[in-house]
Amino acid sequence: MRLLGLDPGLRHTGWGVVDMAGNRLTYVADGAVHSDGGRELAERLVELHDGLRAVIERYRPDAAAVEETFVNKNPTSTLKLGLARGVVLLVPALAGLPVAEYPANLVKKSVVGAGHADKQQVQRMVKLLLPGCLIQTPDAADALAVAICHAHHAGTLARWQQPAAAAGVAR
Amino acid sequence: MRLLGLDPGLRHTGWGVVDMAGNRLTYVADGAVHSDGGRELAERLVELHDGLRAVIERYRPDAAAVEETFVNKNPTSTLKLGLARGVVLLVPALAGLPVAEYPANLVKKSVVGAGHADKQQVQRMVKLLLPGCLIQTPDAADALAVAICHAHHAGTLARWQQPAAAAGVAR
Repeated sequence: MRLLGLDPGLRHTGWGVVDMAGNRLTYVADGAVHSDGGRELAERLVELHDGLRAVIERYRPDAAAVEETFVNKNPTSTLKLGLARGVVLLVPALAGLPVAEYPANLVKKSVVGAGHADKQQVQRMVKLLLPGCLIQTPDAADALAVAICHAHHAGTLARWQQPAAAAGVAR
Repeated sequence: MRLLGLDPGLRHTGWGVVDMAGNRLTYVADGAVHSDGGRELAERLVELHDGLRAVIERYRPDAAAVEETFVNKNPTSTLKLGLARGVVLLVPALAGLPVAEYPANLVKKSVVGAGHADKQQVQRMVKLLLPGCLIQTPDAADALAVAICHAHHAGTLARWQQPAAAAGVAR
């Protein structure tokens, strides 16, 4: 199963692709889609849309996971993040992928073991968990962390769905 | 020239189509695209996307105008509005339309003559300015108001671009 992790932002949206086979995770690719701050808002959203669609067409993931946007105290920043996140949620859904969402502190907890880890700690753990990963931008590290978080939860979910069979328990 | 006005919202996005010939405005159609609050966020954004694309395919406007989202004090509401607005700005831009944005008080001022008009005043003036309009929902009235605002500004812009010719002034 191939997972696409996404870390939304209007200027930079990070993405990371990971293969999951049982408990084993393998790094596939990462990067970021950028929008040009000098262009009109609608055109910038088209840039994000086109960039993400190209990633999905190239790597053909089976599912996507998006980091829940941090709602900060500056409403204008929150609104901008919302715009980007709308497009980031939309594009994989238009491609027919199920789209999961995870709060930032759950993503950090899944990767580092603590909900309040800093960017460097997240990056270090992503490198440990995904040997050979490039981490082309800081946003890509966060996107890979979301993919890892989704893999953990998807794995847990799969085990929940067949607990008796897996454990060989007669009920 | 055919204009599409849009009033974004995650649950209801209003739309209104108006034809402009010189100073004359004619009502074409209005309505709202809805998303199902019981579905996943990404699926709701797909509903908005599909609904707006259908409106654009049916009425083939030449330009779109979107009301700037009211940034309120509740960050969660602001974020939700942002998500919807991202999709509402994206869809006409993907269809190749120029997308203008107008702050809500400028829209009201263009239609009612005051920046702090209430919904009823806006609706009444839209009905006066666009005889025969249906106003299928309150969001559709706001969307028609945005289209009227854009028509005023587009008209002004056109006159600015050829002032000497229009006035017969030698420079």
